Amino acid sequence: MGGDHGPSEIVAGAVAARRNGIPVVLTGRPGMLRPLLAAHNALADVPVIPAEDVLTMSEGALASWRRPRSSIAVACQLVRRGQASAVVSAGSTAGIVATARLRMHSVPGVSRPALAVLLPTRPSPTVLIDAGAIADPRPEMLLQFAQLGVAYTQLAHGIAEPRVGLLTIGTEPGKGNKLAKRAHELLDAEPPHGGLPIGFIGNVEGTDLLTGKADVIVTDGFTGNVALKTLEGAAAFAAAGLRAAASASPGGRLTRRWRRQAVTDLTELADRLDPGHYGGAALLGLEGTVVIAHGAATARNITAAAELASSLVRGQITEKIRERIGHSRAGHFRRRT
Amino acid sequence: MGGDHGPSEIVAGAVAARRNGIPVVLTGRPGMLRPLLAAHNALADVPVIPAEDVLTMSEGALASWRRPRSSIAVACQLVRRGQASAVVSAGSTAGIVATARLRMHSVPGVSRPALAVLLPTRPSPTVLIDAGAIADPRPEMLLQFAQLGVAYTQLAHGIAEPRVGLLTIGTEPGKGNKLAKRAHELLDAEPPHGGLPIGFIGNVEGTDLLTGKADVIVTDGFTGNVALKTLEGAAAFAAAGLRAAASASPGGRLTRRWRRQAVTDLTELADRLDPGHYGGAALLGLEGTVVIAHGAATARNITAAAELASSLVRGQITEKIRERIGHSRAGHFRRRT
Repeated sequence: MGGDHGPSEIVAGAVAARRNGIPVVLTGRPGMLRPLLAAHNALADVPVIPAEDVLTMSEGALASWRRPRSSIAVACQLVRRGQASAVVSAGSTAGIVATARLRMHSVPGVSRPALAVLLPTRPSPTVLIDAGAIADPRPEMLLQFAQLGVAYTQLAHGIAEPRVGLLTIGTEPGKGNKLAKRAHELLDAEPPHGGLPIGFIGNVEGTDLLTGKADVIVTDGFTGNVALKTLEGAAAFAAAGLRAAASASPGGRLTRRWRRQAVTDLTELADRLDPGHYGGAALLGLEGTVVIAHGAATARNITAAAELASSLVRGQITEKIRERIGHSRAGHFRRRT
Repeated sequence: MGGDHGPSEIVAGAVAARRNGIPVVLTGRPGMLRPLLAAHNALADVPVIPAEDVLTMSEGALASWRRPRSSIAVACQLVRRGQASAVVSAGSTAGIVATARLRMHSVPGVSRPALAVLLPTRPSPTVLIDAGAIADPRPEMLLQFAQLGVAYTQLAHGIAEPRVGLLTIGTEPGKGNKLAKRAHELLDAEPPHGGLPIGFIGNVEGTDLLTGKADVIVTDGFTGNVALKTLEGAAAFAAAGLRAAASASPGGRLTRRWRRQAVTDLTELADRLDPGHYGGAALLGLEGTVVIAHGAATARNITAAAELASSLVRGQITEKIRERIGHSRAGHFRRRT
C-alpha cells in the first residue's frame, strides 16, 4: 500500500515478478488490490493477505507501534511466522525500519539492522552501509555494519574478499569525528575482533564514493543518508545544467539530437545513482530479508526489488550474516592484547 | 609555502593580485620566494617576511604548536599584530585551521571558527557552513555557524535576509541525529536566541545542496566535509561517464565536436563545485580574515582567493560577525520561556 504512486504500480510490479517465477503475496486492502490484480488477470496467481491499515509516507517511526494491522506490519509478521521469506515495500524508510525492528527478530548479536544501498561503481557496485537506518550508532555498530556489508557484497556480487573503507574526512587514521576515529580503531584491530576477517583498507572520503576504491563503505546512518541524497542531487544538477547548455546554444538538427542524447546519458547516470535502479535498499541484520524500494518506485522498480529480495533469500543472506556476526559476538568479550 | 604546486603558483598568483591593486605580503623562505618574485619583476612590489619553517600538507593540527615560524603561523601573527588584514593559504586545511585558532584571536562570543564554502547555485551561491573546521561541534555552535553564514552571505552576495536551512536527513523537525535535532530546536527558538534574527526555513536534505532552496546551509564539519567531497566526486564521475559515452559511440565530426563540448560543460560544472572556483573557503569567526585556497590551487585560484579575502576585509566581515554574535552572546544567558 506504500509508495508515492499508490498500489497500482506495486501490483503491476508484483505481477511481473510472479511471472518471472517469484512467488509473491500482497498485503493490504483487498478491496483495492483485488480489482488491480483482476485487471492483470492475476487474481489466481497472487494471493492477498488483508491488512486494513496503512502507514502513510509522512508517518515516522512511532506510527509503527500504533498500527499493527498496517500492510508493512502484516508483511513483517508473515516473515516472522515463516510464512514468507522477504518483505518488499516502497513505503517510508523510517516507518519500514521501525516496523521491521518491532515485528521481526534480529540476527543474534546484531544490535541494530542497517540499510545497505548500492552505488553505481564499476566493475561492481559499491555497498554504502548504513544509508539511513540509525542516525546515532555506537562505534561498535559500525563494525557490525562492516560485517553486514561484507556478507551482502560477497553474496550479491561474488567478491570473495571485499575491501572495506570507513567514510570520513581525511585519509589518515586520526581524521574524522569521535565516532569515525573510534570505528577506525575497531575496524583496524588485530585479530579482527574475533569475528570473520574484514578486509579493512582504511579511511575513504566523499570523493571516493563513486571511484570503486572500496567494495563496502561503512558510515553512520546520518552521514550515509546525507551522502546518498547529495549524490542524487548532484546528478540531477548536472543533468539540468547540461540541459540548459543544450537549449541555450543553437545548432543543426543533428547537433540538437546529440545534445538530447547527452542529456539522456546523464539522466541515466542520475538513475543509476537512484537506489531504485538496483531494486532498492536492503535492510540487513534481521531474521528475514527486507528490501525498501524508492518511494517513487515504478512497476519495473518493484519487480527489481522483488528480484533482489528473492536472490538474497536464495543466497541465504541471513545465514551468512549469522555466521559472520556470531563469530564477532564471541570475540567481543575477548580483550585486545 | 603551502599547496600541492609549491610556491611558484602562489607567487605568480600573489603578483597578479598585487597588480590588481591588492597589497600583498608573502611569508616564507626568502631564498625560494625572492628568485620567483624576481622572475615576475615584482621584487619591489611584494615584500617577503621571512618564515623559515613549513607546515607540510600531510601535517595535521598538532604541528601548528610545534611550528611557530611556519609560513602560515607568521602570516597569522601579522594579522594578530595588525600588520596585515587577511591570510590566504593553500596549505592543509587542518593545519591552517589549527594555526589560525592558535595564533589569532576569536571574535568575542564565537566558540570555534567555521569553514564556509560556496556551492554553485543560481542566482547566487549557497553558503555551506561548516565544511570541515570542527568535526564534533556542540549544538550551540551550529547556531553560531548560522550567524557566521548569514553575515557572510549578506556581505558577499548582498542578500538582506538569507534563508537558513539545517542539513539533516528528513524535512520534518524531528528528523536527524541528536545534534541536528537539538540544533533545529535552537535555530527555531523564539525570540531567536537573543541575537540578530536568523531566517530559519527548517531542515534541508542532501538533495537540496544545489537547488538554491537555502542561502545558508548549516551543518557540523564532519557532515559538511563529507557532503562537499561527495559533490566533487559526483561531478567528476558524471564528467567521466559522459566522456566514456562520447568515445564509445561513433558519429560525424560535428557530433564528436559537440560531445567534446558536453564533456567540457560538465568539467566546468565540476570546477564550479570546486571551492577554489570562488577563491576558496573562508574561515569565519576570527579577528581577521582567513581564506583557504584549494591545495591544488593554480596562480589564478590564488589571485581569486586574495580577491575574496580583500573584499571580505573591505566589507568589514569581522565587524559584521561581531555585531551578530555579540547580540547572540548576551542572549545565551536568557532563559527560554
